[in-house]
Parts: sequence; C-alpha cells; structure tokens
Amino acid sequence: MTQNTPGSPRIIELRQNILKKNDERARVLRSQFQADRLFVVNLVSGPGTGKTRLLEETLRGLRDRGLQVAALVGDPETDHDALRLARSGAPVKQIRTHGICHLEAEMIHEQLVDWNLAEFDYLFIENVGNLVCTTNYDLGESLRVVLLSVTEGEDKPLKYPALFNTADAAIITKCDLAEACECDIEEARKNLQRVRPNIPIWNTSAKTGQGMSEWLDFLIAQKNASPSEV
Amino acid sequence: MTQNTPGSPRIIELRQNILKKNDERARVLRSQFQADRLFVVNLVSGPGTGKTRLLEETLRGLRDRGLQVAALVGDPETDHDALRLARSGAPVKQIRTHGICHLEAEMIHEQLVDWNLAEFDYLFIENVGNLVCTTNYDLGESLRVVLLSVTEGEDKPLKYPALFNTADAAIITKCDLAEACECDIEEARKNLQRVRPNIPIWNTSAKTGQGMSEWLDFLIAQKNASPSEV
Repeated sequence: MTQNTPGSPRIIELRQNILKKNDERARVLRSQFQADRLFVVNLVSGPGTGKTRLLEETLRGLRDRGLQVAALVGDPETDHDALRLARSGAPVKQIRTHGICHLEAEMIHEQLVDWNLAEFDYLFIENVGNLVCTTNYDLGESLRVVLLSVTEGEDKPLKYPALFNTADAAIITKCDLAEACECDIEEARKNLQRVRPNIPIWNTSAKTGQGMSEWLDFLIAQKNASPSEV
Repeated sequence: MTQNTPGSPRIIELRQNILKKNDERARVLRSQFQADRLFVVNLVSGPGTGKTRLLEETLRGLRDRGLQVAALVGDPETDHDALRLARSGAPVKQIRTHGICHLEAEMIHEQLVDWNLAEFDYLFIENVGNLVCTTNYDLGESLRVVLLSVTEGEDKPLKYPALFNTADAAIITKCDLAEACECDIEEARKNLQRVRPNIPIWNTSAKTGQGMSEWLDFLIAQKNASPSEV
C-alpha cells in the first residue's frame, strides 16, 4: 500500500521508511525460516479467486504425503478462512488486519512466536485479497505465488502488472468454470508470460482436482532445491 | 488506502491530512455536480466482478432512454476498459493510476476540466478493483454502488465490511453463473444486509439482461429525487 501513497516528498520519505522497516523484519524472518528448514509460500491474489480452497487442498495433499504443514491466513475481518483451513488437520492461525489491505512481516513475526517452526516442512501464508497493496511487502517467503481465477478475466495481469511481476509462480484457478465464464485460458497464460516471462503456471481446479498433483510435486521439488536444504 | 497505513502518530497525522484534503476537493466537486444537475455514480468492487460489463450495458441502456451519459474508468495500467466502454457511444476517459490502488477526488477533477458537465445527465466513475482501499475516498459522488460477483463467494461483505458499509446500493453480478459457482445468492444478500441494513440490492446478469431494467429505473428515480433536481 505504501507504494501507492501519492506524492509529497514527506510522504515518499515515510513510505520508504515503512518499506525499509518491513524489509529488515522480512530478512530476519527469512534467516529464521532457512535455519529451521521451513519452506514458506506467500499466496497473493484479488478477493474471491479461491486461495482458501486451493490452500485447503494443498494442506491435505502435503499431509497425505507425510509432510508437516501450517498456515497463517489474513483477512480484514472474520475468522472464516482459518476455520475452513483447520479442517485439513493442520495448525492454522487467522490474522485479522482490521481494515489493513495487506500483510506485513511484523504481523507474521507476531503470530509465529509460540510455534516451533522446526517441526514444520511448509508454512503457507494466505495474504489479504488485494491485487495492488500486497506487492511491496516481503514476508520472508521462499516463494510468492499469485492466483488468477478464470472468473476474473484474462486481462488482469496486464491491468495489475506490479503484483504479477513480483510472483515466482502462478496458478490459474477454477478452470472447471472457464467455459461458463467464457475465459480463454491460453490468453490468460500469454498475459501472465508477457508481464512475467518464464513464470511457471498451473491450470487448476480444486473442485475437480485438475493440476493439483503437479502443483504439489512442484512444491516438493522447490523445497528440495531451496537453500535451507543445501 | 491511507486508512490502512499502520501506525505511528506521525503516519496517522499524515493520513488524516490526505483524507482531509480529499474530502475538501470532493466537497467542491459535489457542489459543481449539483449546480450542473449531474448525477454521479461511483462503482466499487474487487477486481473481476464485472464492473466494466455492467457499466457498458448501463451506458447503452440510459442512452437508449434518451439520457446523456459519460464515464471515467480507473485502472493501475492499460486503457482496455475505456476502449470497451467507448463502444457504447458515450464519452469515456481512462485514468491510469500507475500502481495507485484507488481513485481520489483530485484525479476526477483533473479529468473533468475539459468536459462541459452541464451537457450530461449521468457521470459514472469505475473505481480501481479493490475491496479495501477505495473505502475512504469520497469522489463527490451522488451514489456509491458496490458490486459483488457470485464468483467471489457469499462471505465477502463480512470479510470486507468497511467498503460494503459505505455503499448506498449493491449489485450482485454474474447471477447466470450462480449455480456453476455454487453461490447461494440469498446468503450473499443476507450478508450484505447484515453489514449494511436496508441497502437496496439487485440480482443482475449483464449477459442475460437479468435485473438491468430495474437497475436503470432505480438510477432514473434516484436522479429525479436528488437535491440538484429539487
């Protein structure tokens, strides 16, 4: 959000200070995650793209493969998503931001103090639904994954390029609805590649299971290749 | 967005100043709109809820009834939406916010200087797709309308109450997709009413035309009842 504060020099200075402070906290978190051999995924997207549903299936899928997973989930209000995710059996905490439009590294730090991170293989952070304001806040993650739903329209990467450009991987969600929504998935993939060349992309449907196995394989390969495992 | 800047006293003071400046500009705009007998609608929602499609049909529908309409449309990047809306035959301008997550009264003012507002009956402002940051920015509008798509999930009003609470009317969009998306429209309406009691709500589909005629009737009744017409 601070990236977006319009302009006097005083405001620009302040927003730089906020981001600098966030970056410092994120660096400390990242060192801690690496020391604990924890692979951290930051899930970002607009509201209603199916982050929670995808995450629920992801937590179940990794647990079925014998891996230890946990999740933090951010929303301006309610704890609905934490309750849904807890059904997977994984430890989950809700972060209510009370109107703040993104998660920050400090909020993540506060939630983790009473968890023993070395017990987990993966930590998932479901960010607030926002295609703009989550962009500049590093949460110390190993991987930033952006979701694009077929219900949103193929052009979202072009309209909101900054966030898509910071992502390491992309998931097209709700592919079972593509025909009903008249969404051209190939066009969506091209727009993602235009904004972020060579980004890996999965076509998925949490409902039919499409693409979920490949997505889990990718997460496991990424963790095995990550610095903490070297 | 400024509502969401976390908090030192210095930042709180700054955000209050930004909003105060915006409110002052919005007041001037509102007086100007009333003097010109112009009815202004601010359309807000998350990304991909169908604001542009609804607006395209609205512009056509009002023009078919002999009314003069114009539109401003905000996006972080691209002029796709202005090109789509221009197909209606109405004058349209794109506001590229270059990463800013909401429209501000000053941006509206800058776009209007070379239009003779007295020529129009309605001005529509399509805000940036964002369920948080558009909340606190008054644009001098006569009516704030929030869109909720059946593809987003019934619980969005509860998760993002601040924006829904500031709206004067709500439109549920893409109702033709409700069954495919397993969306319970009655539940969505209840959640809207819980956050904003007595808000008028339309179930619509720009694709099938559902609800569009009632929505246009409402716009006409609202303009006839507005202070500029007294």
